[in-house]
Amino acid sequence: MGKGRLLGLGIGPGDPELLTLKALRLLRAAPVVAYYIGKGKRGNALATIEPHLCEIQERLALVYPVTGKRPPPPYDYEGAMRAFYDESAARIADHLDAGRDVAVACEGDPFFYGAFMYLHDRLAERYPVEVVPGICSVMASASVLRTPLVYRDQSLQVIAATLPEAELEARLAGVEAAAIMKLGSNFAKLRRVLERLGIAERARYVERATMDGERVRPFAEVEPEQVPYFSMVLIPGERWQGV
Amino acid sequence: MGKGRLLGLGIGPGDPELLTLKALRLLRAAPVVAYYIGKGKRGNALATIEPHLCEIQERLALVYPVTGKRPPPPYDYEGAMRAFYDESAARIADHLDAGRDVAVACEGDPFFYGAFMYLHDRLAERYPVEVVPGICSVMASASVLRTPLVYRDQSLQVIAATLPEAELEARLAGVEAAAIMKLGSNFAKLRRVLERLGIAERARYVERATMDGERVRPFAEVEPEQVPYFSMVLIPGERWQGV
Repeated sequence: MGKGRLLGLGIGPGDPELLTLKALRLLRAAPVVAYYIGKGKRGNALATIEPHLCEIQERLALVYPVTGKRPPPPYDYEGAMRAFYDESAARIADHLDAGRDVAVACEGDPFFYGAFMYLHDRLAERYPVEVVPGICSVMASASVLRTPLVYRDQSLQVIAATLPEAELEARLAGVEAAAIMKLGSNFAKLRRVLERLGIAERARYVERATMDGERVRPFAEVEPEQVPYFSMVLIPGERWQGV
Repeated sequence: MGKGRLLGLGIGPGDPELLTLKALRLLRAAPVVAYYIGKGKRGNALATIEPHLCEIQERLALVYPVTGKRPPPPYDYEGAMRAFYDESAARIADHLDAGRDVAVACEGDPFFYGAFMYLHDRLAERYPVEVVPGICSVMASASVLRTPLVYRDQSLQVIAATLPEAELEARLAGVEAAAIMKLGSNFAKLRRVLERLGIAERARYVERATMDGERVRPFAEVEPEQVPYFSMVLIPGERWQGV
């Protein structure tokens, strides 16, 4: 009996209609469908794919050990996450060894900050793998905000707001265009940085782009305490005047 | 009679199966379908959408005045392009004024270096617009190369190889991860830069990812004279060792 295939399927930013035909075909054909989910949560990945699943497909929920705020030391967060990914990979490997394909539903794109990468790193050498790209949150945010993102030979810096303030400022200094992810509790810090750099007026804000609860707000009016993790600030490239 | 809608539909990187359900629905419902095409070429956008179109939909080919090498001055390239986008927008506006929706098939994502942006800049204030994000070439390339692209709080620099050599080197110095687009005749310059920066061994190369003629080659073996425009170099972020 052959081994099953590990399928990393980009399911896009949230809207179930933003699945690709290819991801949908592989998702529907897979006997086992795995997805990450926060403890006690319904999960964005499941919400996106559920309209497309049928009853006989086995669901494999990979439940994060920690959701939201990290417990302080002596809790070993990295150790807990490592054990979680090891165990998730082992559960998937059981199915693959039994010859069953496992489709992992990956929010956005599998290889763009995706937790799928930790499964891939553990399993790719032992099993056949197929990866289907997905629409990432950066493109989804630009479409919701209706703003061209980069023109001609402009560069785009994709950056995580979790970086220390000085580092964030160094990387955003002089950027032509930027997408700043992982906002959550980092919003106030980011706003200070963009104001110091003099580019706050160019910043555009959206939360939960294409998901239920999508919301666009003027950047200056965002209340930092209420910024969810799934939010994004874009600094669009300046409109090209040449043509 | 109401005005028609301008629909910017991301059709993804080339594989017709990498269209989203939403783009497909809007594409099939549009009475007029527009696409950019090089002079005398068949066109990647048309190749991607053709399997999905039906006969009664009107095709609106927007034919670039220049394909490939730019004619030297006194030929006014910028002027020719400006006139071309003006004319294209006017042709689309005729349909919109007549109440017909026009779907513009945008390779990759409409707002990510897309020629759709020049239509959007000309028409968005006068007509209702809907934009559907698409899978960009960066994500497509990572999936074809089977490489995770960015982990955790790593930054990703998206950059055009058309920049002058010194500028390219300045922007790529110290990057954690990068996607370098628009290679074509710029490949030899890029390879020199990556070698000087000591990151050439991390570079991964793919051409025409997910299109007909897709090809992966070891970066060191690429022949600069044979690099097509639709090719990509990725510097993947270093694998996260923590978990």
